[in-house]
Amino acid sequence: MNTSQHHLADTVEVFDTTLRDGLQVEGVSATVDDKLRIAEQLDHLGVHFIEGGWPGANPKDIEFFARAATELRLGTSTLVAFGSTRRPKGKVDDDVTLRNLLDADTSAVCIVAKSWDYHVLEALQTTLDEGEAMIADSVEFLTGHGRRVMVDMEHFFDGYKHNPEFSLRALEAAVVKGASHVVLCDTNGGSLPHEVEQIVADVYRHVGADVTIGIHCHDDTGCAVANSMAAVRAGARHVQGTLNGLGERTGNCNLTTVIPNLQLKLGLQCLPDGRLDRLTAVSNHVAEVLNRPLNPQAPYVGASAFAHKAGLHVSAIKRAKDAYEHVDPALVGNGTRFVVSEMAGRATIEVKASELGLTMDGPAVNQVIDDLKRLEHEGYHFEAADASLELLMRRAAGWEQPWFRLESMRVITDELPNGDFTTEATVKVWVGDERHVRTAEGNGPVNAIDTALRAALGEALPVLARIHLTDFKVRILDGATATGAITRVLLDATNGERTWTTIGVSSNIIEASWRALEESLVYGLLHSGA
Amino acid sequence: MNTSQHHLADTVEVFDTTLRDGLQVEGVSATVDDKLRIAEQLDHLGVHFIEGGWPGANPKDIEFFARAATELRLGTSTLVAFGSTRRPKGKVDDDVTLRNLLDADTSAVCIVAKSWDYHVLEALQTTLDEGEAMIADSVEFLTGHGRRVMVDMEHFFDGYKHNPEFSLRALEAAVVKGASHVVLCDTNGGSLPHEVEQIVADVYRHVGADVTIGIHCHDDTGCAVANSMAAVRAGARHVQGTLNGLGERTGNCNLTTVIPNLQLKLGLQCLPDGRLDRLTAVSNHVAEVLNRPLNPQAPYVGASAFAHKAGLHVSAIKRAKDAYEHVDPALVGNGTRFVVSEMAGRATIEVKASELGLTMDGPAVNQVIDDLKRLEHEGYHFEAADASLELLMRRAAGWEQPWFRLESMRVITDELPNGDFTTEATVKVWVGDERHVRTAEGNGPVNAIDTALRAALGEALPVLARIHLTDFKVRILDGATATGAITRVLLDATNGERTWTTIGVSSNIIEASWRALEESLVYGLLHSGA
Repeated sequence: MNTSQHHLADTVEVFDTTLRDGLQVEGVSATVDDKLRIAEQLDHLGVHFIEGGWPGANPKDIEFFARAATELRLGTSTLVAFGSTRRPKGKVDDDVTLRNLLDADTSAVCIVAKSWDYHVLEALQTTLDEGEAMIADSVEFLTGHGRRVMVDMEHFFDGYKHNPEFSLRALEAAVVKGASHVVLCDTNGGSLPHEVEQIVADVYRHVGADVTIGIHCHDDTGCAVANSMAAVRAGARHVQGTLNGLGERTGNCNLTTVIPNLQLKLGLQCLPDGRLDRLTAVSNHVAEVLNRPLNPQAPYVGASAFAHKAGLHVSAIKRAKDAYEHVDPALVGNGTRFVVSEMAGRATIEVKASELGLTMDGPAVNQVIDDLKRLEHEGYHFEAADASLELLMRRAAGWEQPWFRLESMRVITDELPNGDFTTEATVKVWVGDERHVRTAEGNGPVNAIDTALRAALGEALPVLARIHLTDFKVRILDGATATGAITRVLLDATNGERTWTTIGVSSNIIEASWRALEESLVYGLLHSGA
Repeated sequence: MNTSQHHLADTVEVFDTTLRDGLQVEGVSATVDDKLRIAEQLDHLGVHFIEGGWPGANPKDIEFFARAATELRLGTSTLVAFGSTRRPKGKVDDDVTLRNLLDADTSAVCIVAKSWDYHVLEALQTTLDEGEAMIADSVEFLTGHGRRVMVDMEHFFDGYKHNPEFSLRALEAAVVKGASHVVLCDTNGGSLPHEVEQIVADVYRHVGADVTIGIHCHDDTGCAVANSMAAVRAGARHVQGTLNGLGERTGNCNLTTVIPNLQLKLGLQCLPDGRLDRLTAVSNHVAEVLNRPLNPQAPYVGASAFAHKAGLHVSAIKRAKDAYEHVDPALVGNGTRFVVSEMAGRATIEVKASELGLTMDGPAVNQVIDDLKRLEHEGYHFEAADASLELLMRRAAGWEQPWFRLESMRVITDELPNGDFTTEATVKVWVGDERHVRTAEGNGPVNAIDTALRAALGEALPVLARIHLTDFKVRILDGATATGAITRVLLDATNGERTWTTIGVSSNIIEASWRALEESLVYGLLHSGA
C-alpha cells in the first residue's frame, strides 16, 4: 500500500505525554511527587521520550522540571518540556513561553504550532505569513540554544482537509529551520484511519526525507490506536500517546495498546529488548499512583484481556493457545485467566506457598481458598496486598504471630474553638504478660493510631523503629450507600530493604485502617528479624 | 480504494448483541427483566436486529424469548435467537440446539459456524467435508422452517489467513442454502484494519452479489470500531456490536461509537431518521440497568466526550464550534461542557457565571481565579466538584449562606471489648440565635457526623430530609508522607431532582469530610427551596 515503506526504519519512537496531555483527563490531578514516580515508571518501561509538562503554563510543572533535574535518574528515556511558538507579532528573545521552555533545561523540547489556516486567521487574529514566521522563528531560536526541537502541528488533519497548501507551508517552516520531528496532530480527534493514512502518505512524499514524522491522535472516533497505526503504515516513525489512554475528552492514543500492536503485529520495535513484558505492571502502577482504576477491558494489560469463561475447554486452550488467544499474554506481562476455575485457584495457591517456603497440606490449601472467597466477597482484594495474603496463608497453615495482642483503641477528633482540628488516639496492647497503654496525637486518625501503637510497642520491639508507612490508599467500594459504604484501606510500608502492602476492609474507615496497620506491623516484624 | 462501493446500499444494518455476547463481560449479570428493559431501549434507538440470547445454552434465555413474545412490543427492531450448527455426524431433525432455536419462535435466527480449518479438525475432531455439511444442513433446515438465517463465521479472519480455501467453502455452503447474511467474525480479536479491509474485499468479490456480508469484531487490539469501519468500506453492510462495548475480554465493537462514525462521517444510514440523538440517553440507560457506570471517556456518549478544559479556548469555541468539536454533540444527544480548573481563564469563569445566572464584576472574577489557584495548589480539585465551585463563585460575588453556622464538632471511634467498633459524633451549630447540640452514632466517622448534623439542623430546616448523600470518595494526595498525607474527600448528594458534588481537603480526613459535608448541605438548601 505504501511503496516507500522499505526505506523506513523498522523502529518506531514512543513519545509519552501522560504527564502533559494525559493529565488533562477530567477528575485526575497529580502532585509533583506523583509525576516524578510516573516518570520513573516510563523510564523503566523504556519509552524514547517523556513529555513532563508545560513550564510557565503551570507552576507545578516548573517545580517538576526543577526537581526532575536533581531527583530523576533516567536510564532510557529523554525528558521533554512542552511549550508553544512565540506570540503573533512578538519577538522570540522576549517571549515568556520560549524563555520558560529554555529554563526547564531539557535537551529536547516540543512546541505546538498552528497548522490550520482558520486557527491562524481567527484564533490568533493574524496573517498566514505571520503564522508561518512564528513557527520558523521559534524553531530557529530553540535550535540556536542547542535544543532538539519537535513541533506538534495542531489541528493538522482538519487543516489539511481545508487548506493543504498552508498546512504544508507550516510543516516546511519547521523543517527548514532544523526541527527534528514534525508531529501531525488530530487535535479534535475526528479523523478516521483511511483519511490519516492518505494524508500522512502525502506528507511523507513532501518532507519524509528530511524529518521524522510523528503522529498524535485523540480517541473521539474510537480510532486513536488505528489512526496511529495507519500513520505508521504511511511513514510516521514517532507515535505520541499516554499510558492507559489518559487525556482530555475521550483520551489520547493508548500506548499500552499501540505499543504491542506495533511491536507484536507489525514487527516494528518500540521499546528496548526485554521491556515489553513490563507493560502490564507499569500500566497498573500508574493507575494506582493516580488512584484511577485500570479498565479491566483494556487491551493487552486489562485484568479481563486474556480471561476465558468457563464454557471454553481449558484443555483445548492449553493444547493450542494461539487458536484462542491473539497473542501470548506473557509477552506483555499479563497472563491467561480462567474465570470460575477451582483448579486455577489451587494451582495458584500451591505456587505461592512454595514461593514462600510454606508446607501446606490439602486441608490448609482448601482453607486458604475458602478464606479468599469469603474475604473477597466482603471487599478484600488480595492481588493488591501481598503481605496480607502471606499472613492469611501462614495462619491457614497454623501459624500465629507471637509479638503482641491488641486489646482495644479509641480515637477522638475535635474541632477547637479557633477552627483547628486535633486528633488523639489511645491504644491498649499486650506484649507477653505486659499491658501497654499509650495516647498520641496525629494530624488525622490513622496517623494518631500509628503513632500511639508504635509508642506502646516500641520499648518491647525496638525493630519497629525501622518500619515506616510509605503510602495509604482509601477506596469506597459501594457508592450506592454513601457514608454507609464499605471502605477498603491499603497501606504500603518498608523496612528499608523490602516494601509490602496490607489491606483492611470495614464499613468503618477507622476499623479498616486499624486492621491494615496491625497486619503491616506483623509482616514487618516477621521479615525484620524480630 | 474499493471500486465496487458504488454498487452498494448507502445503509448499514445494525445488529445488537448486547443481550448475548455483551453479557459475557466479567462482573455483570442481568435478570430476564433487565434484558427486556434493554431490548426496549434498543428498539427505541432503532437498531435493525436485537440478538436476545442463546435458548438452550441458558435457561434464562428460554424464559427471555417466552416473555419477549408476549411482553415486548417492538416498533423497529427484529428479535433474533442465537444458536449453532448441528453437531458433527448428527442429524438436523433431532439436534437439540436447532430445536431450541425454532422453539424461540423468532422470525430470524443467527447460528455460529466454524470457518477455521484448525477448529473443525481439532476442536470438533471431524473432517472438513463434515464441517461444510454441518453448515449446509443447518441453514437448509432453518430456512425450510421459514426462518431468515444469518451465519456467524467463527474465527473467520484467523481461518482465512491459514486456509482461505476452506473459509470460503464454509461461506459458500451457507450462501447456497439460502442464508441471508454471512457474518465474518474476528473471534480472538487480534486483527488490524488493513487486514480486515483486504479480506472482506476478497469475500465481497466471491459472494457479495448473493448475500449481505456482516462483520463482528472484538476489541483485543483496540481496533474493533476501526475494523468494523474497514469492513464496511470493503463491502460489509451489516455491523454487529454491543452498547458501550460490553463483551468478553476487551469487549465487542462499541455500537455507540461505530453508529455515529458510519452515519455522520461516512454518510451511511444506520438508524431510522431522527433516532441518532437518542444515543447518549440509551447508552446511559443501559449502563444504569446493568449497574455498570458508563466510561466518561466514551466517544460521542461519555460525560467527558465534549468537555473542554483549557481556559484559552472557551471564547473561541463559542465563536466557531466546528473548529474545536469533531461533530455537533447535539446530533448524538450529548452536549458541550466547559470544565473549570486552576488553568481556567477569565472567559471560562464568565461563561460559568452566566450559566449560573450570577452577575460578576471584574474584581469578583479575579477573586475567583485567585481562589481557584490557591485552593487547587492546596489539593482542591474543582472540576470534580461543581457544587463547591458554584458556592465559591457566589461567595466571591458577595453572597453568604443564611441558614446555619457551625461552631464545633467531635467524633470518637471506640473499639469495644468484644472487638466491635462504634463511632459517635457530637456537633454544635447555630441556626439564627439558637444553638443546637446533638450527638449521633454512625458506622464510621462521616456517617456519624452526617447523622448528628441533620439531627441538629433538621427541626429548623425540614427540607434537609429530602437531601441524601449518594457517594463518598477519598483520595490521598501525597503518598510519600503516608498517614500524614493530604486527604481529599468528594461527596455526591441528591434531592431527587438534581445531583451535586462537593469537596473538602485537609491533612485530617475528618476535617476534609466535615468541610465537604457542610458545602453539600448548603448547596442542597440553596437549590431545594429552603
